[in-house]
Amino acid sequence: MLDTLTILAPGLLGASVAKAARARVAARRITLWARRPEIRNALRTQPFADAIAETPTDAVRDAQLVILAAPVEKIITLSAQISPALPRGAIVTDVGSVKTRICRECTAAMPPHATFIGSHPMAGSAKTGWENATDDLFAGRTVFVTPPAHEKSEEKKVKSKKQATGAAAPFHSLPFTLHSSGDFVAGFWRALGATPVIVTPAEHDGIVAHISHLPQTIATTLAALLAQKNPQWRAYAGNGLRDTTRIAASDATMWMEIFQQNRAEILRALDAYQTELAAMRAALATEDWPALRARLEAGKQFRDSL
Amino acid sequence: MLDTLTILAPGLLGASVAKAARARVAARRITLWARRPEIRNALRTQPFADAIAETPTDAVRDAQLVILAAPVEKIITLSAQISPALPRGAIVTDVGSVKTRICRECTAAMPPHATFIGSHPMAGSAKTGWENATDDLFAGRTVFVTPPAHEKSEEKKVKSKKQATGAAAPFHSLPFTLHSSGDFVAGFWRALGATPVIVTPAEHDGIVAHISHLPQTIATTLAALLAQKNPQWRAYAGNGLRDTTRIAASDATMWMEIFQQNRAEILRALDAYQTELAAMRAALATEDWPALRARLEAGKQFRDSL
Repeated sequence: MLDTLTILAPGLLGASVAKAARARVAARRITLWARRPEIRNALRTQPFADAIAETPTDAVRDAQLVILAAPVEKIITLSAQISPALPRGAIVTDVGSVKTRICRECTAAMPPHATFIGSHPMAGSAKTGWENATDDLFAGRTVFVTPPAHEKSEEKKVKSKKQATGAAAPFHSLPFTLHSSGDFVAGFWRALGATPVIVTPAEHDGIVAHISHLPQTIATTLAALLAQKNPQWRAYAGNGLRDTTRIAASDATMWMEIFQQNRAEILRALDAYQTELAAMRAALATEDWPALRARLEAGKQFRDSL
Repeated sequence: MLDTLTILAPGLLGASVAKAARARVAARRITLWARRPEIRNALRTQPFADAIAETPTDAVRDAQLVILAAPVEKIITLSAQISPALPRGAIVTDVGSVKTRICRECTAAMPPHATFIGSHPMAGSAKTGWENATDDLFAGRTVFVTPPAHEKSEEKKVKSKKQATGAAAPFHSLPFTLHSSGDFVAGFWRALGATPVIVTPAEHDGIVAHISHLPQTIATTLAALLAQKNPQWRAYAGNGLRDTTRIAASDATMWMEIFQQNRAEILRALDAYQTELAAMRAALATEDWPALRARLEAGKQFRDSL
């Protein structure tokens, strides 16, 4: 069990970390800080909060693990702000959707005696805000943990040793022979019921560019195209169109940050997609039915395997 | 109420028409024919079947309305097969997803004393087969009804007259002053709880190319691209990817027919989509953030309006 956990700027994700840590007894003491005084007041009476700090620096003074649960730009600001107050051996992580820049800037902000390791839980909800937090938000979900490239090989050794012993040990029962900060953070997420996946920040950004940011780009573009068509068509939408465009309803401001932060990787994924789409079009235009069928079947096989 | 309804080749859609017609008392007598003898036998004991015919021609001899519920190619074959047996004044419709070719070929197959009017219910289910039919499959769903272009203007006059009187009258209470076969078919679908929408076959194919066939093309292409990537990524899929690729799991054979039948309109919709996607890519590549945000917001507005 962790002794002291601090969560800064708890929204849906941060407060769900606090609730899950309480429910699964993953931290003895949980300290929270929120920017707005009225939220600090509201949090004071919550069973998942042991202490509410008035400032970010106060919040981290005795923390073993700090979670920066703010939006991307604020994560970087907060890491610099708390740096002078971090105790020896503190580990800092976050919940941001893009990792390369966050990991670079937050690592640069750390004092020599503290470590930043990025995290990205593949969990969320259409509802936002700490009021909608749940203690099982991370149960069974992938959480990417992104130590720097030079630490990753060591992780893998530790991981395979653990796998060799059979079941994944819950965090609070792990012997404190953790070989790295990456393992420490992965162990924490595992204690919340998640499945941690250790990759480098660059690997992470390439993966999510394909499995999250590309689907968003595609869905947004389809919805933006249909927005230009006869408004009556909206009444004819079937479930296929509803599903395919569902994420186009996501918050534009959040996605602007992601596009800005992961621009290069998204462009790469988009190029690959445009090439595939052009090949699909060519098969249809030239009536190359075997090629078209092969694409339909490859797509079906992929989707059936999810 | 219709006196005699015949449904040929009932699968999910055809048998749901029979069930809905029985439940809503939209037809006095329902006759079915299925190609396979074991299905004819199984249907014999169903409460939605009054008679099971041994041949398509036997099935239609006294029909007021015939529903061709087979796959697209079979619809055309069946229309030619039943033509000599159709009684005076019979109206024939179908449930196929593409309309221009079906309407042209089925209309050509009709004798002078019978009329073909296409239908396309925007309803379905992941489950297929008559065993999965339900009597509310069409409730609240759009059903396109596609009379030839020269008949449509008359429809519109009738429609607006009806709208002027207020509520849409259920089919069985409509006075028999129906001005056209298109209205007759629309009235039948309305009696099953659906919302009929009257458009020409060409208009229909342009609409569904955008709201159904384009989403399928996009989802299939995304799934086919990700099928080439690290299989481990599949374990990381969030709800966004699941939703966006859901229809990629659809039956490839059914979609081959649709791509073949609606090739020109799908190519047109795909061209428009590729142009939009290239503009989205350009906004990202050139860091034109206002343009990118405008697209995200247009997409969100469209999706929120569904």
